[in-house]
Amino acid sequence: MFSRFLPKEPRFFDLFDHQATVVVESAETFLHLAKGLSPISDSVEKIKRLESQADELTRQCIEALHKTFITPFERDDIYHLTSHLDDIIDSIDAAADCLLVYKISEITSFTKDLAEVLLNATIEVSEAVEAMRDLGNGEIIRKRCKKINQLENEADVVLRNALVNLFEEEGDIRLLIKWKEIYEHLENATDNCDNVANVIEGIILEYA
Amino acid sequence: MFSRFLPKEPRFFDLFDHQATVVVESAETFLHLAKGLSPISDSVEKIKRLESQADELTRQCIEALHKTFITPFERDDIYHLTSHLDDIIDSIDAAADCLLVYKISEITSFTKDLAEVLLNATIEVSEAVEAMRDLGNGEIIRKRCKKINQLENEADVVLRNALVNLFEEEGDIRLLIKWKEIYEHLENATDNCDNVANVIEGIILEYA
Amino acid sequence: MFSRFLPKEPRFFDLFDHQATVVVESAETFLHLAKGLSPISDSVEKIKRLESQADELTRQCIEALHKTFITPFERDDIYHLTSHLDDIIDSIDAAADCLLVYKISEITSFTKDLAEVLLNATIEVSEAVEAMRDLGNGEIIRKRCKKINQLENEADVVLRNALVNLFEEEGDIRLLIKWKEIYEHLENATDNCDNVANVIEGIILEYA
Repeated sequence: MFSRFLPKEPRFFDLFDHQATVVVESAETFLHLAKGLSPISDSVEKIKRLESQADELTRQCIEALHKTFITPFERDDIYHLTSHLDDIIDSIDAAADCLLVYKISEITSFTKDLAEVLLNATIEVSEAVEAMRDLGNGEIIRKRCKKINQLENEADVVLRNALVNLFEEEGDIRLLIKWKEIYEHLENATDNCDNVANVIEGIILEYA
Repeated sequence: MFSRFLPKEPRFFDLFDHQATVVVESAETFLHLAKGLSPISDSVEKIKRLESQADELTRQCIEALHKTFITPFERDDIYHLTSHLDDIIDSIDAAADCLLVYKISEITSFTKDLAEVLLNATIEVSEAVEAMRDLGNGEIIRKRCKKINQLENEADVVLRNALVNLFEEEGDIRLLIKWKEIYEHLENATDNCDNVANVIEGIILEYA
Repeated sequence: MFSRFLPKEPRFFDLFDHQATVVVESAETFLHLAKGLSPISDSVEKIKRLESQADELTRQCIEALHKTFITPFERDDIYHLTSHLDDIIDSIDAAADCLLVYKISEITSFTKDLAEVLLNATIEVSEAVEAMRDLGNGEIIRKRCKKINQLENEADVVLRNALVNLFEEEGDIRLLIKWKEIYEHLENATDNCDNVANVIEGIILEYA
């Protein structure tokens, strides 16, 4: 086998995989919390730790980018891939942080719905990233990306329903403002999965 | 004829033109709606269709980018041009979507004012994009870009007045929150026209 | 002394320095205002003037970028550096503008706290930018960037406390919405300082 990239430059793929694993873990942690399976503050703290870890991996990736002469694909694409992976966890962390700052004690069902779609999207991201080690996997990767795009649309529908409900049912305007922000962070997280999918599709096209 | 771009690579310009046309059409549809000339739901649906069409054109443009060896100008510039054109229609669609989600039945006069400035900005964008087929049109293109910048400032003034009015006159805090978001999406759409103008000015400078 | 860049292309560094100086001045003006040392409207007007000046400098920098064949470091990095410097002042201007549009007559202590952290961050940015004239200054520059990152985290903590306070203490929901936006613009300004630091760290790595 003479895969063009594997033997020479496995480092970037290891970093991407690691980032994607941390992203999935933070989405799992958020869903766990949203299902009421663990105290909010414990989960939020765990997400904060994962977010720091993701930051460090992004830093390492960008450092590797600047210090490596030959990269597996275009430098810009590597930069965008690592940055957008980091954006996903930043949005999850922002949503989690709101739960603490806004002293939320009871999670809504829309939060659970959004967290479920998000977890599925991050799993697809992680599978797509792993498949990139062999760009011959084009067909499989494209399918994953299409699935991510569908999940993003799904998150959008959930968000719209959540907003309709919020403006019609929530009597406490402070809570309305708080939940609107939380829902939007979660939907952003799925948007950011879609941004990762777009970068990956671009890379696949280049090497098809 | 050995022009580097026109005979061989008209595709990018065709795609840009087509995107710009769809952008203008969606701004027209929004203004129509804002003037009360058609039912809100019909217009919003039409804007959704145009937004999907714009997505598909962006996808085609990025695919062409990855599959074309010689491009009419720098790959990065093409990428930013097509993305920012898409951003314009995304903001218009977001504003339109709010009208449905928030069950708005009556349009404010500020919406009409913002939609009018926006339509003018998209027309300038479309003219600038068309003029780019001949980069000898530098002077004309620069004028269009300057006009777009002026319109962006105009939208900013309208937004400020709309916010002053909203916070002083709107008694229903839910409606205040809804309209603030709608106005901001519309102003963003004009901002995105300005982003397109900045990319175009950069390209013009490069080939001046 | 035969510094690699100074003799040939001092222009970019002059422009960066000038931009950074304007950024610091606008943060100083905002802090002055936040401390109640000058009428709000005077300070806001001064910030508007500084913002226009910064726009013009960004324009000149991008024009120079397109017209210069040999640049002191990668074109993309120059583009991102000048854009993110401009983003800082745009956020300060947005916060200042809110004070006028929302007819704020009394500044909160959180505003002063955020403005203080922001001013410190902009001073570090300015020192880091100046030190870049000699990329042998890597160690010093890295320290400045680390400090900016710490200040960004500090701003985050202040913002969180400000939001907790706002949702618990502010009885007037309109004021709550206004201040939430102002605080977020100020925190964004510090975020944008951190974006500048990230670009600078990337450049340093490249030339280490």
